[in-house]
Amino acid sequence: MKIGIFGTGMVGETIAGRLVELGHEVKMGSRSAANEKATAWVTKTGSRASHGTFSDAAMFGEIVFNCTQGAVSLEVLKLANGTQTLKEKILIDVSNPLNTDNEASTALLYCNDESLGERLQKALPDTHVVKTLNTMWCGIMVNPRRVKETHHVYLCGNNIGAKTRVKEILRSFEWAQEEILDLGGIDAARATEMLLPLWQRIYGATNSFAFNFKIVCASH
Amino acid sequence: MKIGIFGTGMVGETIAGRLVELGHEVKMGSRSAANEKATAWVTKTGSRASHGTFSDAAMFGEIVFNCTQGAVSLEVLKLANGTQTLKEKILIDVSNPLNTDNEASTALLYCNDESLGERLQKALPDTHVVKTLNTMWCGIMVNPRRVKETHHVYLCGNNIGAKTRVKEILRSFEWAQEEILDLGGIDAARATEMLLPLWQRIYGATNSFAFNFKIVCASH
Repeated sequence: MKIGIFGTGMVGETIAGRLVELGHEVKMGSRSAANEKATAWVTKTGSRASHGTFSDAAMFGEIVFNCTQGAVSLEVLKLANGTQTLKEKILIDVSNPLNTDNEASTALLYCNDESLGERLQKALPDTHVVKTLNTMWCGIMVNPRRVKETHHVYLCGNNIGAKTRVKEILRSFEWAQEEILDLGGIDAARATEMLLPLWQRIYGATNSFAFNFKIVCASH
Repeated sequence: MKIGIFGTGMVGETIAGRLVELGHEVKMGSRSAANEKATAWVTKTGSRASHGTFSDAAMFGEIVFNCTQGAVSLEVLKLANGTQTLKEKILIDVSNPLNTDNEASTALLYCNDESLGERLQKALPDTHVVKTLNTMWCGIMVNPRRVKETHHVYLCGNNIGAKTRVKEILRSFEWAQEEILDLGGIDAARATEMLLPLWQRIYGATNSFAFNFKIVCASH
């Protein structure tokens, strides 16, 4: 499949690398087609990898991952001319509306009665936004079997067919069927984005980012 | 130990019952000393159980649990004359600032840059507020071994000694030492309270409330 990636950071590179490994053709998009990190990634990764502007990546992909910092994701959609280039496509949003201006802050830019997932969906009404993978470190997103037991990934979005396709991608990353929990419409992005402050506190308390959450059941 | 409980709901009764079972003397407090639920609970539970007003429960307890609905907890502290009755005591806050006026809403009344835990601490500067247990169903709070594997409970507060005492109570509920994660000062209550929308969505998706979260680690 042809897949676009918005963002050249650690999350974007990790997902892009895994997709190439699985046989997909991947175009990494950034503000400038001459982006040094994207150029280096393509050189390192080989023939199935390419790079260009956000708009190039959006046009290239049948499916596009949003791996930009949540604070700039809406601007990126504009730079990508997303209303045209992402029309009828699936946008997989793995970002969170973190306050990146203030590293010390664990506050989100907004939450509770809104979410980044919903803002992206509202900005692109003809695109199927699916929120997933935003609750963990990227090394676990694409290699869930690094965790030696069952654990969980959430997914939400308004279009059932789009969610089915995203589940297939998650399955190809080796997420087990029963580890993928569909939380409903894109408004459920509020809930998964609001997990981030707890993620950050646990990171602070344990000094490890290589963890995820498992839902464990009790007898009644 | 003498322990006060604010609230006569399911959470209050569950915690109160477990504490009596463990040999403590427990006074359940509510708006009226004639509260029917509290009276029925005392009749059912026996000699170590008693009830009274919020103020009675606060005066009685060396430690007090706040099990009221988060939306009214600050008002309860006033009714309890908390600045006097809870002075130098430990208040264990297990509540969440849920919007109980609107059952359909999964939004919190406030979050992100504030929390109920912090509001309680600010209202009672001479009390040691410790936030814990607010991330799960009450049946698991007091009987964590209902879950047949390791899982986690968070705790935060500004006073180390108070947190040590609360950990002892959690240990008496049979939480294992390594299952209790100290997230730091009372401002970490923001993070644990913000887990609630995800808890509610998982409840909606699975139709089960008898679950908790386990932190699982990955290889790097």
